[in-house]
Amino acid sequence: MAAGAAAGAEALIVTHGPDVRYLSGFTGSSGAVAMVGGRAALFTDGRYTTQARAEAEGLRVVIDKKSPAVQAVEWLAGAGVTKCAFDAGQTTVTGMEAMKKALPSSLRRSFLVATDGLVARIRQVKDEDEIAQMRKAAALGCRLFADVLEFVVAGTTEAEVAAQLEFKARMYGAEAMSFETIVASGERSALPHGRATGAKLPRRGFVTMDFGVLLGGYCSDMTRTVHLGKGSDFEWDVYHSVLEAQQAAVAAVRSGVSCGEVDEAARAVLRKAGLEKEFSHSTGHGVGLEIHEGPRIAAKQEQVLESGMVITIEPGAYLSNVSRSRAGKPGNGKSAAVFGVRIEDMVLVTEGGGEVLTAASPKAWMEL
Amino acid sequence: MAAGAAAGAEALIVTHGPDVRYLSGFTGSSGAVAMVGGRAALFTDGRYTTQARAEAEGLRVVIDKKSPAVQAVEWLAGAGVTKCAFDAGQTTVTGMEAMKKALPSSLRRSFLVATDGLVARIRQVKDEDEIAQMRKAAALGCRLFADVLEFVVAGTTEAEVAAQLEFKARMYGAEAMSFETIVASGERSALPHGRATGAKLPRRGFVTMDFGVLLGGYCSDMTRTVHLGKGSDFEWDVYHSVLEAQQAAVAAVRSGVSCGEVDEAARAVLRKAGLEKEFSHSTGHGVGLEIHEGPRIAAKQEQVLESGMVITIEPGAYLSNVSRSRAGKPGNGKSAAVFGVRIEDMVLVTEGGGEVLTAASPKAWMEL
Repeated sequence: MAAGAAAGAEALIVTHGPDVRYLSGFTGSSGAVAMVGGRAALFTDGRYTTQARAEAEGLRVVIDKKSPAVQAVEWLAGAGVTKCAFDAGQTTVTGMEAMKKALPSSLRRSFLVATDGLVARIRQVKDEDEIAQMRKAAALGCRLFADVLEFVVAGTTEAEVAAQLEFKARMYGAEAMSFETIVASGERSALPHGRATGAKLPRRGFVTMDFGVLLGGYCSDMTRTVHLGKGSDFEWDVYHSVLEAQQAAVAAVRSGVSCGEVDEAARAVLRKAGLEKEFSHSTGHGVGLEIHEGPRIAAKQEQVLESGMVITIEPGAYLSNVSRSRAGKPGNGKSAAVFGVRIEDMVLVTEGGGEVLTAASPKAWMEL
Repeated sequence: MAAGAAAGAEALIVTHGPDVRYLSGFTGSSGAVAMVGGRAALFTDGRYTTQARAEAEGLRVVIDKKSPAVQAVEWLAGAGVTKCAFDAGQTTVTGMEAMKKALPSSLRRSFLVATDGLVARIRQVKDEDEIAQMRKAAALGCRLFADVLEFVVAGTTEAEVAAQLEFKARMYGAEAMSFETIVASGERSALPHGRATGAKLPRRGFVTMDFGVLLGGYCSDMTRTVHLGKGSDFEWDVYHSVLEAQQAAVAAVRSGVSCGEVDEAARAVLRKAGLEKEFSHSTGHGVGLEIHEGPRIAAKQEQVLESGMVITIEPGAYLSNVSRSRAGKPGNGKSAAVFGVRIEDMVLVTEGGGEVLTAASPKAWMEL
């Protein structure tokens, strides 16, 4: 347990879905795990009787109409527990009040001890089984990228590219996409989070595809940016600055290195290329049962990478409505450029460095 | 404002995504709306500068690195507000503490007034524009059901049925599915929430499809259960009991009627058919910007339906591993039946009754 934060707590209540799954195996939408001493129990409702018993092997499973968190609190209080840690970052104020109300009045003020991200922190470091599953998810992502390229042609809509990608994901066995598929083409590539729309892919311009699958419960996440038609020298330059930044950050990954150092490796390259302001987000994030987990790979983050973490490395540059005069560039030296580039891999942290899990998808400049 | 709950609050902070969208038009993943007197402001971060200004027309838009809720609290406190309502059901304990910390110490104990579902309650009644959008979403659902039937054949996997359905949804312009598509075939139809798996559709047996699209921000939600091959008399009976229950509940819908009465209309039919225990969930729920909204159409719910609400009516019966001796049934009087049936429509509440928005999809017994 997090020293200090959970001081004095003898027990733990977990209600956040991915944490419940991590601790118990249960995948239903509503459940709570209570742990005290060597004992653990899973609480859920009648919709999940069969499923909970099948998934949460070895755990005591309790089914009741009351909310899982309330069931858990009552069970713990009944077992003599007087202090119990809960995740304040995953519990609503209303949820906390309901737990308090379920307690005898003598315990109401002191029973619940607020902690933040207790299980989430443990989940950052993946075990062998998890890493094997994430390799499969990442490999499926790469397969989808290879498959979808035939649909990346002028005149196709962004939505159709997404539809093809998602169709194939399902057919290859994915449970779902791990987040809303991003297909951002032409000027829309300047939007870091451009959802796939009815916009048609242009004859000339970038297409950014950022997508992931959910496979065996684990998320993949990758981004590739390709160019339709012949790119300008400026587009080529920006692409290669982003690529260089991405590779520099990947090269900086190693257990013991701080997240801020990895971020800075990417940012330094883009700063030197005059694209610091155009890199408007952080370099990456942990990924696992959830698409966004810790650690944050961002400026000044002091958290240190550990072997077994799986993170994304995804610098980008987004140029919007700016008429730029760029020294040393070919052409007229001015480009009213509206486009964006992002390149993203999933990287497993090891002692020896970072292992790119999405290496099967090429990152070299691609003109289609 | 909810009388009592928000007593004394002069202002309101809203952070739940669908509420923020409802009040401001902003669709980004992180934002807060603050309202005081006649003024309102939207707070978000640098990722959404362009999007927020485009979507939240007429609102003041503030961009900052601090969390939107903290920005909103600071803005309100700076404007002289001393009491502000917030949604305790949508705010984590950590989020509330962060807001408190942003306040001057003199306000810290008294500024935040907990309310629950203030905007969600307003959202239950849809205006004309919203109803028009929901009609489109419901119509798209019906179109998808018609299209997908050609894939509902023995040997196809549940996942492929889902894949085809989701592919077409995208191609017809849906932003996404409104929830994880359910395709539950054969014995899996006995699972109320059977996700589409790699299981192959059987030669004989039910296939339950429960799915919805997100179109223009609004959710559709419908379920149809069809039969592959010839159904048994018992299957036919159960199907028609569920259908009769569904039609009875739809017929009970009218503004002024309580949700409990609508639920009872369905439940009474299934009780009479000896299927009360097999109907293990509530009859329906509100739907709109979110797939599950108020009101709850469940036993003893006293909330009264109002014109403009859009609700689902979705009774079901799930028979699992029970050897049943049923009087008056044809055959040997015993069936070791494992199957389920659910039929669901979206219904608009009006003064004259319920208008079924998904009426274009037939509900009559269908053998494929």
